Amino acid sequence: MFKTNRERLKKNIELFSQIGATENNGVTRLSLSAEDIMARDKLKSICEQLGMIVTVDDMGTMYATLPCKTNNLPIVMGSHLDSVIKGGRFDGVLGVLTALEAVETIIDANIELNHPLTIVNFTNEEGARFEPSLMASGVLSGKFEKEKMLASIDREGITFENALEKSGYKGEEVNRLTKAHAYLELHIEQGPVLEHYNKEIGVVEGVLGMVCYDITLTGESNHAGTTPISMRKDSMFAAMQIISILQNKLKQLPEDLVYTIGRINAYPNIHTVIPSHVTFSLESRHQDPTVIQQVEQIIFDLPKEIENCQLEYTKLWNRDTVYFAPTVINAVAASAEELGYSRHHIFSGAGHDAQFIAQFIPSTMIFVPSAKGYSHREDEFTSYEACSKGADVLVNAVLKVANHALSQANSANAF
Amino acid sequence: MFKTNRERLKKNIELFSQIGATENNGVTRLSLSAEDIMARDKLKSICEQLGMIVTVDDMGTMYATLPCKTNNLPIVMGSHLDSVIKGGRFDGVLGVLTALEAVETIIDANIELNHPLTIVNFTNEEGARFEPSLMASGVLSGKFEKEKMLASIDREGITFENALEKSGYKGEEVNRLTKAHAYLELHIEQGPVLEHYNKEIGVVEGVLGMVCYDITLTGESNHAGTTPISMRKDSMFAAMQIISILQNKLKQLPEDLVYTIGRINAYPNIHTVIPSHVTFSLESRHQDPTVIQQVEQIIFDLPKEIENCQLEYTKLWNRDTVYFAPTVINAVAASAEELGYSRHHIFSGAGHDAQFIAQFIPSTMIFVPSAKGYSHREDEFTSYEACSKGADVLVNAVLKVANHALSQANSANAF
Repeated sequence: MFKTNRERLKKNIELFSQIGATENNGVTRLSLSAEDIMARDKLKSICEQLGMIVTVDDMGTMYATLPCKTNNLPIVMGSHLDSVIKGGRFDGVLGVLTALEAVETIIDANIELNHPLTIVNFTNEEGARFEPSLMASGVLSGKFEKEKMLASIDREGITFENALEKSGYKGEEVNRLTKAHAYLELHIEQGPVLEHYNKEIGVVEGVLGMVCYDITLTGESNHAGTTPISMRKDSMFAAMQIISILQNKLKQLPEDLVYTIGRINAYPNIHTVIPSHVTFSLESRHQDPTVIQQVEQIIFDLPKEIENCQLEYTKLWNRDTVYFAPTVINAVAASAEELGYSRHHIFSGAGHDAQFIAQFIPSTMIFVPSAKGYSHREDEFTSYEACSKGADVLVNAVLKVANHALSQANSANAF
Repeated sequence: MFKTNRERLKKNIELFSQIGATENNGVTRLSLSAEDIMARDKLKSICEQLGMIVTVDDMGTMYATLPCKTNNLPIVMGSHLDSVIKGGRFDGVLGVLTALEAVETIIDANIELNHPLTIVNFTNEEGARFEPSLMASGVLSGKFEKEKMLASIDREGITFENALEKSGYKGEEVNRLTKAHAYLELHIEQGPVLEHYNKEIGVVEGVLGMVCYDITLTGESNHAGTTPISMRKDSMFAAMQIISILQNKLKQLPEDLVYTIGRINAYPNIHTVIPSHVTFSLESRHQDPTVIQQVEQIIFDLPKEIENCQLEYTKLWNRDTVYFAPTVINAVAASAEELGYSRHHIFSGAGHDAQFIAQFIPSTMIFVPSAKGYSHREDEFTSYEACSKGADVLVNAVLKVANHALSQANSANAF
């Protein structure tokens, strides 16, 4: 088994965390911002020094490829360099830097693979500057229309198209990722499960299916001081009763179902006014589509009138469960096993570029633990040791996927 | 008994509703705006034509006084000409125009009262442009500091002091209302009670005491897709359970208690993020201070920890119950009785200038019905007939308060 270079990975993580560094140890590296461009330039320069060929596609996604002597399809690894505002030092960038570490480890070991190795940096994964998230991989998979994406504007009115042109990272459509032997994306878990179970590696079997609804209770706005309780149509108390019903019913579904009421808005939201209506989101995720159907049935069965208020719901969107490729999953699981790293099989609750890439390339992901499950915040944390173990699994999984015979001699060299 | 001139009152209501008229039959007449100044000018001109003397105090409050031959204290009637944005045609202005109608009725009937009659227009009752509401009466009663009020700024950064100076309605402190024989304020109910009980006149015994708290549940923000339910500190579900407890306990208190959760804010309020904390307001009003104490005890007794979240509360403010003067209340009740108008004794749930004036002048209010209880909206409505009945009660109550002996002859003249 190969192990990666802990010091080099640590150095690279520290190097990239300086690009867009925030006060409290995080990073702000919005897609196609000056900071993102600095990070791209740095990646390009490192990869070119390693003899990799860097190309860019029409959505700005970067590909750094280590050629080989065959015409085989590449094995692709990577993630994204962009971040949310005041995000952490690991989300996204770790997938790119462990891919780099895997390539350097393979170069160091003088291994000649029978597949090119490509490091990918997907443009605008976060969607924090230009909506939607997963923009570039969405275009690659045909999920999003390119023209609509180009027209997406940031808060200052700049279109994605303009930002892309100015960045110097507008490439050619011909460079798009369309075929590959496999795609492996290492990422922090962004959840507390690995930490909770004290496991080192998350073997990711897919991405949870989800539904998101808006539910609105409509009553009547009136003066809080002058309207007797018996004459009210109070949409706040109606909403609270509906949330209570939802919680009680959702609790009865399988315990690995997640459901969240993350957004609630009362109108006019003034302490002295009975709200005319209250709208809240209900978002739920599970790997089994029949469980998601049960969630929807609970919503359909909600009383249409409660506390003299009317209930309406709107489906905002859904995502079918994405199942990753067993061959690639197995390569990850076997690598962790052989390295002696504890592992936990998991579905990703969060969305990742891999969910779109999996539509046309055999794919999987490798998770490393997130301290307290934190992500998208400055105190997001994964130890360098944990990052390196992820990189170890990545490089060995790549070798397995490439059907590279690991001789004892090679293994010994690698240590 | 005297009756007021229905046509004249209707004409005046229509006249003033044109000043700041909105598209949907309402008015926007923010304090000291061009529209408010137009309404003030119009009131001044009408009153001066009636032989009244118009003075203005240092907060811009207008007093139009019909002199008499004695040195007795004036009987003061009125309310306010300002409105909220897209308010109705009745809130506030009706108290001024029925006061005017009462004066004109007394003049028409050639009655020589032994008290001067003063119509008052309090500056900035609504607080819709400059916070707080009840600004000028608050200064009169010593509740608010004048210097702080002068520094209050609107959304465009204009101070109340500047707006007052520019308006031409900055008068002298010596003109302030400090003493009077009585103060009577007619107002729309702003609630549904009179309409519900099919009563024509609200005899207002006081203004409800109230408390307002903010209650915050603090959990932990995490990704909605990656955090198992059992590992969450979900402040939304915690808040929902607390609201449910509050509703159940508050229901057990006297049924004329009102309580409202008008404002709720979840943070960060994103559908894919478990809220870190949720804050909501609980505002409650009742005439009996011991009932308000029970409400506060319910808040004090809330669990400090629920659904792994911490609970904290903050008292935002309270108002002690204001009791109006029995002599003036009785004059209103007797007038309604003698006029044959159905009446309902009521406490005001809303705040009014009368609550501050009652601190130093024997005061009461007269309510007329609000259709559907609507106020602070363009479709606020009270029929001209209902307004006139209120004006009838007002003028007769003024005569009673002035101890004016109503001869049969006078009464006959008045019809």
